[in-house]
Amino acid sequence: MHVNIVGAGIIGLATAFELSLRGHTVSIIDPAPGQGASHAAAGMLAPAAETVWGQGPLHQMLAASNASYPQFVNQLEAIAGVRPDYLESATLVVAAEPADREALHELLELQTSLGLAAEKLLPSQARRMEPSLASNIAGAVFCAHDHQIDPRSVVRILLEHFSTSLVLERGEELVTSGLQTIGVRTSTGTVLVADQTILCTALGTIKGLDPLPLRPVYGDILRIQAPVGPPLLSRIVRGIVHRENVYLVPRKDGSLVLGASVREDGNPEVSVGSMVNLLDNARRLVPGIADCSLNEVIARARPATGDDRPLIGRLDPGLVLSTGYSRHGVLLSPLGSQLTADLAENLTENPMLANVDPYRFSDSSFHLPQEQSS
Amino acid sequence: MHVNIVGAGIIGLATAFELSLRGHTVSIIDPAPGQGASHAAAGMLAPAAETVWGQGPLHQMLAASNASYPQFVNQLEAIAGVRPDYLESATLVVAAEPADREALHELLELQTSLGLAAEKLLPSQARRMEPSLASNIAGAVFCAHDHQIDPRSVVRILLEHFSTSLVLERGEELVTSGLQTIGVRTSTGTVLVADQTILCTALGTIKGLDPLPLRPVYGDILRIQAPVGPPLLSRIVRGIVHRENVYLVPRKDGSLVLGASVREDGNPEVSVGSMVNLLDNARRLVPGIADCSLNEVIARARPATGDDRPLIGRLDPGLVLSTGYSRHGVLLSPLGSQLTADLAENLTENPMLANVDPYRFSDSSFHLPQEQSS
Repeated sequence: MHVNIVGAGIIGLATAFELSLRGHTVSIIDPAPGQGASHAAAGMLAPAAETVWGQGPLHQMLAASNASYPQFVNQLEAIAGVRPDYLESATLVVAAEPADREALHELLELQTSLGLAAEKLLPSQARRMEPSLASNIAGAVFCAHDHQIDPRSVVRILLEHFSTSLVLERGEELVTSGLQTIGVRTSTGTVLVADQTILCTALGTIKGLDPLPLRPVYGDILRIQAPVGPPLLSRIVRGIVHRENVYLVPRKDGSLVLGASVREDGNPEVSVGSMVNLLDNARRLVPGIADCSLNEVIARARPATGDDRPLIGRLDPGLVLSTGYSRHGVLLSPLGSQLTADLAENLTENPMLANVDPYRFSDSSFHLPQEQSS
Repeated sequence: MHVNIVGAGIIGLATAFELSLRGHTVSIIDPAPGQGASHAAAGMLAPAAETVWGQGPLHQMLAASNASYPQFVNQLEAIAGVRPDYLESATLVVAAEPADREALHELLELQTSLGLAAEKLLPSQARRMEPSLASNIAGAVFCAHDHQIDPRSVVRILLEHFSTSLVLERGEELVTSGLQTIGVRTSTGTVLVADQTILCTALGTIKGLDPLPLRPVYGDILRIQAPVGPPLLSRIVRGIVHRENVYLVPRKDGSLVLGASVREDGNPEVSVGSMVNLLDNARRLVPGIADCSLNEVIARARPATGDDRPLIGRLDPGLVLSTGYSRHGVLLSPLGSQLTADLAENLTENPMLANVDPYRFSDSSFHLPQEQSS
């Protein structure tokens, strides 16, 4: 079948890839492919370090998707011919102050209860692993299976792979026939007819769809460059500093991704206060940050739901929704694209679909296609 | 006569303007006009607030050039048809901590001894003038005649005015005949012959000229945007915070320029440590900084001499040097361009020329044109 995918972030592109592996053809509709949250994301694949009390169903999905990552990367390399920057480099979670050690030990307890790989380290052991860490850190936990991918490398490879399927226009309106979506009208008036249409539009809207239960959660994120010499870090460092979170993700090229704030202040631009806060916290953990050069600071909105789980489900016989991945879009790309492709093929057996039902926040349907001529 | 000007920073452009006012024609040679230090500069015209002990000759020049600014701005408006963003909005110098008050009072003493407009204020008086100042500042001095100009507006107006005189190539080599420069060979091999050639190349070099007594002093500078509402500041605030300097320059459009570091670390990129330091110091003075959005961070090198005074002088019968304006290029543009135009016209009577003699740092001549065919 032929599938319209509206939105070329990492979720839309991974879904296009999954569908093409299953023998379908796609049109990917986006005026600025890959320029949303995927362009900001650090790409931590950290189901252990990101574990939070009371998010059992989400955690299950994160772990399952993380387990799929090596296969996802291998398929990308085999089909698209380029391997994305995937590093199985593990993660250190570090507490800055004695007061932060409590939060660290709570995390460790939770990780252990879930059977996750997590090992308590003495500060001295952590500093042997990462000599750039401050001498006065208060504690550390080693998460052996929390890795990273550079989301920009995934997006770049998939945009190249699908270059002839890209429609660089905005998906403006759903086109329906009876009670079924049959295509998309773009900003230039072109109608793209398809057997199935999948909305991966994050916070973007499309005419014909009622507002989704999503809110923008803004994040500021920095790219910095260590001076010439050995890299500052050899694995991801996540810090708890005065009860706040900060992470440092070292890339293959010696650069570091430093993030990320969590703001619901409605400001889509980089927040000066958040940026300074991130940098101050990062310096507390890794003083050498001060000697780095700034490559980039950007802010993007994450499309967030009330329970941090995505909205993946069928909206009408021709329309599937796959969005609202909150802070987990990169990690959930393999699993999310599989679930979404399943729905497009009308395969509804995966029990995980119950956890991501788009209608779970309300009794009312937010999408009722109206009769309309195309 | 026809004059080659190599380097289209604010000094080169202001010199072109002064020469054209005197009836000469110009060619301005620069592959990236206005993209050097002029693009970073905040544009404070602050001879009082920038006064430093032991820089008498420099201070004289800063004061003279500041006095010429209204005329410079009026001429720009009259000839080029657009008025640059020049604001006679005064400057507040603020001490953050009691320990910083000492430095502030030393400054005031020096200003008073030089007869400069400077008035001591109580913290409460300063806060009445600028309600966004932190409640716990330690002291303030009001400098009524320290104003500002947006250097980018000057550069934009002059680039537009001289659009047909611009040669977007690198000045690669001096072309000489006998012991006299007669023109410039550009990066494409074109030879531009002129009666006089003026080098306004900052730290750039040109073949045929020995190294100048200049060193790069790097600065990081930020542009930020206050949230919608009344502007955060209505005049320039210069702060002394833990003995370090920081300034906040409010623009007409509600944005703020926040600078600037002084680095001799050889790093041409934005320094993370310097940026955080600037922001921390600025927040100490004006806490509302944290609520601003980041528009831009850039780093540029200032071409600095050993005594902070520029290098303005004749190098051979066809060649004049005008560079090394250190942190004062914008303020010195009117005076520097007049002195440079004087030299091009072989007018050497201005006693200030003795203070900016390019040969003052050494007995040896650093420019000896060699016989060469053009």
